[in-house]
Amino acid sequence: MAKIYETKWVVFLASSILLNLFFILNLYLRQSPELTWSSEAAVEAEAVAALSCSGHGRAYLDGLVTEGNKPACFCNSCYGGPRCSQFSPDCPADVNSGDPLFLEPFWMQHARSSAVLMAGWHRMSYRMDDTGSSISVELTKIIFQLHAMVGNAVTEGRFIVFGTGSTQLLHAAVYALSQQGSTSPAHVVATIPFYPVYELQTELFNSVDFKFQGDTSLWKNSSSASTRNIIEFVTSPNNPDGRLTKPVLEGPSVKTIHDHAYHWPHFTAISAPADEDLMIFTISKLTGHAGSRFGWALIKDEAVYQRILTYLGLNTLGVSQDTQLRALKLLKVALRGGGREIFEFGYKTMRTRWERLNKILSASRRFSIQKLEPQYCSYFQKVTGPSPAYAWLKCEREEDIDCFAVLRNAGIIGRAGSLFNAESRYVRLSLIKSEDDFDLLLLRMDELVSKEEGAKII
Amino acid sequence: MAKIYETKWVVFLASSILLNLFFILNLYLRQSPELTWSSEAAVEAEAVAALSCSGHGRAYLDGLVTEGNKPACFCNSCYGGPRCSQFSPDCPADVNSGDPLFLEPFWMQHARSSAVLMAGWHRMSYRMDDTGSSISVELTKIIFQLHAMVGNAVTEGRFIVFGTGSTQLLHAAVYALSQQGSTSPAHVVATIPFYPVYELQTELFNSVDFKFQGDTSLWKNSSSASTRNIIEFVTSPNNPDGRLTKPVLEGPSVKTIHDHAYHWPHFTAISAPADEDLMIFTISKLTGHAGSRFGWALIKDEAVYQRILTYLGLNTLGVSQDTQLRALKLLKVALRGGGREIFEFGYKTMRTRWERLNKILSASRRFSIQKLEPQYCSYFQKVTGPSPAYAWLKCEREEDIDCFAVLRNAGIIGRAGSLFNAESRYVRLSLIKSEDDFDLLLLRMDELVSKEEGAKII
Repeated sequence: MAKIYETKWVVFLASSILLNLFFILNLYLRQSPELTWSSEAAVEAEAVAALSCSGHGRAYLDGLVTEGNKPACFCNSCYGGPRCSQFSPDCPADVNSGDPLFLEPFWMQHARSSAVLMAGWHRMSYRMDDTGSSISVELTKIIFQLHAMVGNAVTEGRFIVFGTGSTQLLHAAVYALSQQGSTSPAHVVATIPFYPVYELQTELFNSVDFKFQGDTSLWKNSSSASTRNIIEFVTSPNNPDGRLTKPVLEGPSVKTIHDHAYHWPHFTAISAPADEDLMIFTISKLTGHAGSRFGWALIKDEAVYQRILTYLGLNTLGVSQDTQLRALKLLKVALRGGGREIFEFGYKTMRTRWERLNKILSASRRFSIQKLEPQYCSYFQKVTGPSPAYAWLKCEREEDIDCFAVLRNAGIIGRAGSLFNAESRYVRLSLIKSEDDFDLLLLRMDELVSKEEGAKII
Repeated sequence: MAKIYETKWVVFLASSILLNLFFILNLYLRQSPELTWSSEAAVEAEAVAALSCSGHGRAYLDGLVTEGNKPACFCNSCYGGPRCSQFSPDCPADVNSGDPLFLEPFWMQHARSSAVLMAGWHRMSYRMDDTGSSISVELTKIIFQLHAMVGNAVTEGRFIVFGTGSTQLLHAAVYALSQQGSTSPAHVVATIPFYPVYELQTELFNSVDFKFQGDTSLWKNSSSASTRNIIEFVTSPNNPDGRLTKPVLEGPSVKTIHDHAYHWPHFTAISAPADEDLMIFTISKLTGHAGSRFGWALIKDEAVYQRILTYLGLNTLGVSQDTQLRALKLLKVALRGGGREIFEFGYKTMRTRWERLNKILSASRRFSIQKLEPQYCSYFQKVTGPSPAYAWLKCEREEDIDCFAVLRNAGIIGRAGSLFNAESRYVRLSLIKSEDDFDLLLLRMDELVSKEEGAKII
């Protein structure tokens, strides 16, 4: 009897000790040590992230608050309901904006390494260091490392400035390259089709120092081109058509602003590091964080650099230091493994989308998109097929002069070619939005091409 | 014998079970539930925050990385060494900038509620909602609540825009109030002494639509003032002298931009809610987060609002959404307890500094600072003494024409009165920097006044 008791005791005790061992091991081997002041913010962020939006939306910490004081789902276009589960069948495919949400899944997959926690007292000062600079030295280092790794830009002997998006830097560059008090304003030009912001920004202030003067072709053979102060915007790869471009104008009085927003392996083969005097980049099309408004410029000439600093100081007094911290974290993730993770994800996504759209349009005689050739990419060290950010679609039928309207009637919202100073039989279709937007574009395009008389059978 | 064994078993088992219970309770009662993807960011932030900088500096997540791959301390002026423990006795008191670090201790005391964790996929889009707006609705709500609570501005019937600091909004307002294509440029004016950025921004672009035309007094009795388009900057409380101000010019063609950066209970008694057509605010001087670059404007007229939106869209395409999330979190803390916590902290700090500086200067015949009267504050519901952001110091001796140089020689770096278009016998001393900066100012000022011949004995 005592024996039986004793065995029972032993079993109980052993179980209890094992349980204690489990707790102790758990305590010591847990990855996260005990947190104090940061835990509330972390718990809150995880709770919002855990909210299910059916894969067609996501909840944000600062999202609209619904009943029960919980953030609501922010649904992708054409999806609705409290959990984004309701698809609206007649909803048009909105492929107008250049919202780079194609990279969102990448960051969801890299949640652990890309999260950042900001203390309430983080970087309250205007300045970042004792020199009074408002630019993060660590972020500058990472940007230089990234360019060296990708091989898309020469950073040696360059000054760097940060902007509230590349948007701010485009105009800062026009300001810096124009001469104040010059007898005639600098002529700002670009090659059609071009990004409309160049023109709109230049004209905003009615400045006597610079005027927008349209297409480069107007000045190519002009005798005045050699004497006038000209500022040429060169976008490579080009927005909207994805082509690699070079300056059209040359001469001692021609200055060039190189907009390299899309000059990353997601969108183009990298042939050689860009080595121009003034190059502008942005994280919007690199990491996909358009909402963070962060860009940078690499500048060779010190006087131009100083004038850009003057502009930025008076315009916004620097770039959000919250965003600089976040950009640092994101670019550190982008650098990992030689950048393979993000660039392979980006390239594969864009390449697949381009192939799928081409497949549908290859059956069409009514619509065509730009032809782009495979090229050797020094970053991937192989020939890569085209993977542009936008399709530059042309309505081929004579009567389809208003191509935007033709597509709109078929449930596709593109961006009219006329906005890019091109013919209205062109439309830009964004391929960088969410998977839902892209899938809907394919669906609507397939319907449209199928209805086409004389469509090729493939 | 069996009895003794059994007692031992019981004791062992009871102890073990108690330990089990402790672990289980610990698991269930722990404040922070188990974190997954966010823990790395939280741990990292706490590690940096735990770095000791001797109370004369702080470490940041994006601080300069030293050996061992750890962020280094960023020391207050005049402190150095790896832990900011070394004071440089001959170092001048730098009270030049308006860096609002006086609020840093408040945020350190409210670490738990003010921290924010951003997921890698937080707000990647340009837009915040389905309307395409890049402005956070929740943040707008909180800002309106804050104005209602403090009673410093009427928000009913106003449009709101966000800017990359109020800096961006000041010029957006000039743009919006000037008429494009007008035959003569709008005259932009302010009352001396005024914040220099108004003039520098207006002149930056050599616009044909607006020109800076100096002091309001030049136009007060001018016959052309009634016909010309005039844009008057009114800063209340004023930077540099802290006075509450009203527009000087009036008439059908006079438009006014009200800069209310300092219109908070930290710096002034609130008499009544400001009810002007165009009012500009910033978190820099409210929560102290100058580095975040976040401001807002309240606008009555829809056409002006639309023009400001055009400017902001082309200038930076919105404000960092990272910063909008952070501002939301900070302002939620500011709202707590009817704002008592932050405004009492802010007012007490500024009031004490003003009293301490006045005490030293009351012994001087050589230096004077502006006289400000106690006033009834509707927010605190009592009469409050002056607590301005800056001292507007005057060198009274005839020979001390260059007051900046007089102070500089005594180890005090102020901001020269001439920068505010005032006489050079004035200097602005910033009272809103860190406690270290302020203490050093008092030390140097005390030395300077003590050396004065004929100084009053108090």
